[in-house]
Amino acid sequence: MRTLVRELPSQIGETVTVSGWLHKKRLLGGLNFITLRDRSGVVQSLVEAKDELEKLRGMQIGTVLSLTGTLVADERAPGGAELHDVKIEVISPVTNEPPIEIDKPLGHKSENLDTLLDHRVIGLRNLQEQAIFKVQDTITQTLRRYFSEHDFTEIHTPKLLAEATEGGAEVFTMDYFGKTATLAQSPQFYKQMMVGVFERVFEIAPVYRAEPSATTRHMTEYTSIDGEMGFITLNDLKLFLSGLLNAAVDDVWEAHETELKRWNATKPMLTEEIPTLSMEEIHEMYSKATGEKTVGEKDLRPDEERWICEYAKKSLKSEAVFVSEWPASEMKFYHKVNDENSEIADRVDLLFRGVEITTGSMREHNYEKVVEQLKRLAGGREDDPGFQPFLSAMKYGMPAHGGFGMGLERVTQKIIGLNNVKEATLFPRDINRLAP
Amino acid sequence: MRTLVRELPSQIGETVTVSGWLHKKRLLGGLNFITLRDRSGVVQSLVEAKDELEKLRGMQIGTVLSLTGTLVADERAPGGAELHDVKIEVISPVTNEPPIEIDKPLGHKSENLDTLLDHRVIGLRNLQEQAIFKVQDTITQTLRRYFSEHDFTEIHTPKLLAEATEGGAEVFTMDYFGKTATLAQSPQFYKQMMVGVFERVFEIAPVYRAEPSATTRHMTEYTSIDGEMGFITLNDLKLFLSGLLNAAVDDVWEAHETELKRWNATKPMLTEEIPTLSMEEIHEMYSKATGEKTVGEKDLRPDEERWICEYAKKSLKSEAVFVSEWPASEMKFYHKVNDENSEIADRVDLLFRGVEITTGSMREHNYEKVVEQLKRLAGGREDDPGFQPFLSAMKYGMPAHGGFGMGLERVTQKIIGLNNVKEATLFPRDINRLAP
Repeated sequence: MRTLVRELPSQIGETVTVSGWLHKKRLLGGLNFITLRDRSGVVQSLVEAKDELEKLRGMQIGTVLSLTGTLVADERAPGGAELHDVKIEVISPVTNEPPIEIDKPLGHKSENLDTLLDHRVIGLRNLQEQAIFKVQDTITQTLRRYFSEHDFTEIHTPKLLAEATEGGAEVFTMDYFGKTATLAQSPQFYKQMMVGVFERVFEIAPVYRAEPSATTRHMTEYTSIDGEMGFITLNDLKLFLSGLLNAAVDDVWEAHETELKRWNATKPMLTEEIPTLSMEEIHEMYSKATGEKTVGEKDLRPDEERWICEYAKKSLKSEAVFVSEWPASEMKFYHKVNDENSEIADRVDLLFRGVEITTGSMREHNYEKVVEQLKRLAGGREDDPGFQPFLSAMKYGMPAHGGFGMGLERVTQKIIGLNNVKEATLFPRDINRLAP
Repeated sequence: MRTLVRELPSQIGETVTVSGWLHKKRLLGGLNFITLRDRSGVVQSLVEAKDELEKLRGMQIGTVLSLTGTLVADERAPGGAELHDVKIEVISPVTNEPPIEIDKPLGHKSENLDTLLDHRVIGLRNLQEQAIFKVQDTITQTLRRYFSEHDFTEIHTPKLLAEATEGGAEVFTMDYFGKTATLAQSPQFYKQMMVGVFERVFEIAPVYRAEPSATTRHMTEYTSIDGEMGFITLNDLKLFLSGLLNAAVDDVWEAHETELKRWNATKPMLTEEIPTLSMEEIHEMYSKATGEKTVGEKDLRPDEERWICEYAKKSLKSEAVFVSEWPASEMKFYHKVNDENSEIADRVDLLFRGVEITTGSMREHNYEKVVEQLKRLAGGREDDPGFQPFLSAMKYGMPAHGGFGMGLERVTQKIIGLNNVKEATLFPRDINRLAP
C-alpha cells in the first residue's frame, strides 16, 4: 500500500511505503541519504543497510523507486520526518546521467533559458520549475470558478478558420483539403456571437500568432483566457476584472506558500476595485515626473507602463491599474466609441506589474455602426463572407456587450514575478522553437 | 435594476424589470403575448396597452428589450408566472426576419443539419440548441472537478509540432517561418512526458485531424479530454474511468432536468464499476446470438459494438462496457503488452450507447522495450528527432502509467442521445465545412 509524501506527517513511528523518483542522493559513506519525489512532495530517507545501498549502485537521478521504512520525526529533514531502516525496490532503473541537473534550483538565468527549454522534459522535474505550473493550475481553476459563479457558460470555438480574425500578417495559414485555412488569433468574433446565445461566455484555449520576433513577451501559441458579457457597461467590466485578478492572487497565495517561496514571490498588492487613470492623466504625470514629454501621444510607452505601475503601487496601494480614455482613432473596428465623447473608445487596458495583461472594451453592437466601422477602420465590406457570421449576430439582435482576452502564461509570469513569459509555458513556441 | 428570469418565482406580485431577447410573439389582437429570453430562461408577458403594442410593430424575433411590469402567478405560463401591464423599452431593434426560426424546436432532422449549421450563429439562440451546450458545460466542469479531486494537474501542451504525433496521413501541415509544422492530433506524447513531472495530468483542449470523410462521427477539430496517470494498473484506469463517467452523468441529470426534457433524453443506466468483457467473449456471444461469425477477428464490428451495448444494458444493467484483451498485433507502439500473455495489449475500449468513447491503455515505460516497439510497430528510429523528447522521458525514469483520451463532443452527444457529433459542437469543422 503506497503512502503519498504529503500524508507522512500523520504517520510518525509507523512503517510506510512511498514510491516515486530518486530526486537527490548524498552517499557519504558514513551517512547515506536519498530524497524521493512523488506528486505530492519530497521525503528524505537514511539508507543504512549495505545490501540496500548496493541496490543504488549506478542508479541515477530519476530512477523510480519504492522505499519501505520507519518514519522518524526529524526537525532538520524537509517535511519534518525522515525514513529510516529502508528497504529499497528499484522499479525503473536509470543508468544514464540526466542531461540537466534536477536536484537543485535551476535559477532561470536568461542566458541559460534555451538550454533549459531544450531539456524541458527532464528539467520540469525540478521542484522550482514544477512550482510555476502548480500555480498556473490554480490560476486556471480559480478563473473558471469565478466565471461560473458569475453565470458564464464555457464555450469551445473553432481554431481552424476560413479567414483571419483580425487580419494582419501575423496569421498562420495552411492547406485545408485544397482550400486555405487560418489558425485563430483569438476567439473574438465567436465570443461576441455567443453573447447572443448565452449572454455571458468564456473560453480558455490556445490561440496562434505568426509572431516573427523572439522576445521575452511573445510566443506563436499561447493559452488565451477570453470572457464576454452582455447587458453591461464598461464599469461592470472593470469590476469584473478587478474581482477576477483579486480572486486569482488570493487563491494562489492561499494554496501555494511552498511553491511561491521557491521563487521569492511577493503577493501583489491589490485594492478591491483596481484604480483607473486616463491615458492623458498618465502622460501628464509621467511627463512631469521624468521630463520625457509624452502628453498627446496615442499610446503608452513601455517605460511609462512601468512607471505608472510603480506609482500606483506606492500611491494607490495597487500593483494593477486601469488605463482609460484611449483615442478612438486607434481602436479596432469592433470596439465602441464613447457615447458622450466620440474622440475616445470605451476601452480600458489593465496594467499589472509593469505590463499590459489585458485590454477590455465595449463592442459596437449596432449593426449599421459596426458595418461603418468595419469599412472605415478595417477596410472590410458588409458582404465579405468572413464577416457574415459576426455581422449577422449584430443584425439579429445584440445588447451592449464587452469583454477581454488575456494570456494565461503572462498572468502566471507576472503573479510569480518571472522575467520571461516562456518560463511560464510548459513547451513554448516561437519563431525559433517548435520542439520539444 | 434588472431581474433575471430565474429569480422571478420569488417576486410574485412585485414590479420587476427583465431584459433580454424577444423570443416569441403571438399578437392575436385580443390577447397579445410575447416571450422574452435572458441567460437564465424565458418569461411570458401580456402586452395590454396600445402604445406598448405599437412599440413592437415591425420588431422581429431577436429584438433586445427591457420589460417592466407586474409579476402575476399563472400556472399555464412557463415558469409559473407572467408579466402584466408591461412597459416596453426597445434596446436593439431587429427589423429583418431571422434566416432561421428560433422560437420553436428545431428538431434536428439529419436532412436539415447543414441548414442549421449554415445559420448556426442565430440557430443557437433556440432553447433546444442551447440545452446541448449547457449540458456540455456541466460535463466539462464535472470532469475537471473529478480530475482535480484525484490529484491531477492541468496542463497546456503545444498544438504546433515539428512532426506528426502518430504519423499517418490525417495530419494538417503548415508553413512555419520557412519550416514545416503540423497540428497536434493528440497530446499523447506530452501527457506521457508530464507523468514524469506531476504523475497525474489532464488536458481539455482542441486537437486536429485531417479527416477526409464527412461522417456523423468525424470532425477535423474537436475537444479532446486527455488523462494520464503514473503508478497505476489497467484496473486502476478502469476504476477511474468508471467514476468519471458516473460523475458526469449524475451531475448532468442533477443540473439539467429542463434541458434534458427538450431532447427526451433518458438517464444512462450505469453500474458503479463498469463491467468488462473480453473481445473474444464478445465475438462468441455475438456470433452465437446473430449467426454472424466474428470469432477470431481482431476488432469489433460497428454492429457488434451496438449489440454488446444492448446486451450490457439488458443483462448487466449498464449502458457502458469495457472491452478488454485486444490483440497485441494491432496495438500502437506506445501501448504495453500484457506481462503474462504477450498476445494481448493492456488496453480497454470503453463502449457507451453503441460506440467507443475512449481507448484506455497502459503504456510501455521501459526505454529499451519502447524503442523496440517504435521500430517494429511504427517504423521509427531511436535517434529520430521527433521521438527524442518522448523517449528521453522513458530513458530518465518512468513508472508504470496509463491513460485515455476522449472527445468532449462525442460524450455530450451520447449522454443526450443525439445522432450526429456535429450537433454537439458549437461550430463544427469537417472536410466540407470551415465556416461559420
